[in-house]
Amino acid sequence: MDYTVTIDALPTLSFGRKVAIVTNPKVAGLHLAYVMARIQAKELYVITVPDGESYKTLSTIETILENCFEHRLDRKSLLIGLGGGVIGDMTGFAASLFQRGIDFVQIPTTLLAQVDASVGGKTGINNRFGKNLIGAFHQPKAVYIDPSFLTTLPAREYQAGIAEIIKMAVTFDSAFFAWLEKANLRDKSDIAYAIEQSVRIKARVVAMDEKEQGIRAALNYGHTFGHVIEHEAGYGHYLHGEAVAIGMVMANALAVRLGLMQAQEAARVEKLLKHYDLPTHFAIADVEHFYDLFFMDKKSANDAITFILPKGIGDVALRNDIPKVDVVAVLAAQGA
Amino acid sequence: MDYTVTIDALPTLSFGRKVAIVTNPKVAGLHLAYVMARIQAKELYVITVPDGESYKTLSTIETILENCFEHRLDRKSLLIGLGGGVIGDMTGFAASLFQRGIDFVQIPTTLLAQVDASVGGKTGINNRFGKNLIGAFHQPKAVYIDPSFLTTLPAREYQAGIAEIIKMAVTFDSAFFAWLEKANLRDKSDIAYAIEQSVRIKARVVAMDEKEQGIRAALNYGHTFGHVIEHEAGYGHYLHGEAVAIGMVMANALAVRLGLMQAQEAARVEKLLKHYDLPTHFAIADVEHFYDLFFMDKKSANDAITFILPKGIGDVALRNDIPKVDVVAVLAAQGA
Repeated sequence: MDYTVTIDALPTLSFGRKVAIVTNPKVAGLHLAYVMARIQAKELYVITVPDGESYKTLSTIETILENCFEHRLDRKSLLIGLGGGVIGDMTGFAASLFQRGIDFVQIPTTLLAQVDASVGGKTGINNRFGKNLIGAFHQPKAVYIDPSFLTTLPAREYQAGIAEIIKMAVTFDSAFFAWLEKANLRDKSDIAYAIEQSVRIKARVVAMDEKEQGIRAALNYGHTFGHVIEHEAGYGHYLHGEAVAIGMVMANALAVRLGLMQAQEAARVEKLLKHYDLPTHFAIADVEHFYDLFFMDKKSANDAITFILPKGIGDVALRNDIPKVDVVAVLAAQGA
Repeated sequence: MDYTVTIDALPTLSFGRKVAIVTNPKVAGLHLAYVMARIQAKELYVITVPDGESYKTLSTIETILENCFEHRLDRKSLLIGLGGGVIGDMTGFAASLFQRGIDFVQIPTTLLAQVDASVGGKTGINNRFGKNLIGAFHQPKAVYIDPSFLTTLPAREYQAGIAEIIKMAVTFDSAFFAWLEKANLRDKSDIAYAIEQSVRIKARVVAMDEKEQGIRAALNYGHTFGHVIEHEAGYGHYLHGEAVAIGMVMANALAVRLGLMQAQEAARVEKLLKHYDLPTHFAIADVEHFYDLFFMDKKSANDAITFILPKGIGDVALRNDIPKVDVVAVLAAQGA
């Protein structure tokens, strides 16, 4: 993967080709003028799509593509995703499909997108069967992470981004986790360092396993449970990072039950999540129904669910042999 | 590219995973029983989509994907495209999208798909802006070319396949062209040899340039004109190979006008096309309108149209500097 990640104020970018910025009205109102002032292109277009996870659909992708054709973009043109994870995933997916693949660049504006979604080339959309079930692997040519965007981010979205930072630390870096326990991620220089560490971890894992045939799946820690929680609560109820926070606590409970993680380590993770006001509990009305929904999740293969379970803090196991009885016991312990 | 091409009676294929065959009712009636008798899978499903180029749409892709989810296919499952080029292109495209990419196998049943479309990994769909403008590069794991399927092929479709064989010869192999002038492609052993040669040429070109950044574009000889002809005549009026036949004659006329090809060589190509009852002329009512439509074709880049022009027989030039006046003269010479 030959893309660059820049963590700094957005530099002036010169493209000798047609460029279209894909964004939504909310982000456009906050940041579009700032970004457009820094982009030079042969022709520059803006494609606006509705804001929110509920619009992360094939229908919105069609709208983006229609705009690309209307503007007569060609195989040498470039798309820029300006926004959060939803915008980034859809911009990358549209870029992968347009004339069988054109270049794209990510300018993530949310903390979650800056620390996780913008790096790694996973693109896609949701459908009625679940999240990100249709998509492509398509790497951005460059990712520009400008921390100044975070000043306008609502507190709740900011916290949701912190969940993914904690995820990176629990799965791959115990020293980073220990640092997080002492840091103040609402501080400007601490969050810049945390973004840098998260992107470093993410990029290293993706470089080892771009197509997620092995270790990259570890980044789905909290997501196996989290995706089902998002589905059950209804898309939009929880922010992605919030659902992942609950999912991490559930995965930890399973890891503790199986003897992979000490209860005290699970407690440290939960304490850190709570410190940033993240939810850590989801009442499950129907445990069997919840369990069934794992099988529509894309991390399952040949009817075995792969659980990502911490082996303490800073290491992780991928296990597809967990007996249903153990999973159900953990789900039941959540209460209805 | 690590896929195999087998030109022989379909062998028994054993897959230790879930498999779904994508086909249409017409092909299913003729060949599905024969194929299913030769496939062993963990679970075997059949997904049927409507027959015809007009159904090569994103909506049909959604239908295929919906079926994949309903059957609970997973990341290890396999799709098989059983049919002509439309089925193959859509099966490969659906496979590229399902959970960000699963394996697929091609079992082409038309001559056109056997000699061209099934090899090379170009997948996609049409939209109102043109043909194959949305898609992905996704290589099949294997291609099984069973010449026995051709016995049920209507004469017109058979001839359309011959157009693509002639294309391969004109662009890359003068000895093969000379052989074609003497061969009888309605003969069983001659057609088997012609398929073999065509697949050999195609595979060699694709291996040199999978993503069509250079020489692979030469395989679009006849297609720059052909796509516009299909669009103008209305999808379904001409078979793809028929439009390509006319397109080759137009490209030759342009090549002759520019001094790249001798009139006598162009005449040999036209004679061979006519020998197989292929159309070689399309009346153009509005030359300017026809010319404008080139710019919606995916082979254009930054507003320069790339024409694929024979340099005699067996060699080819890619030219994006052809003056409009020359193209318009050739179009006008077609008459209204």
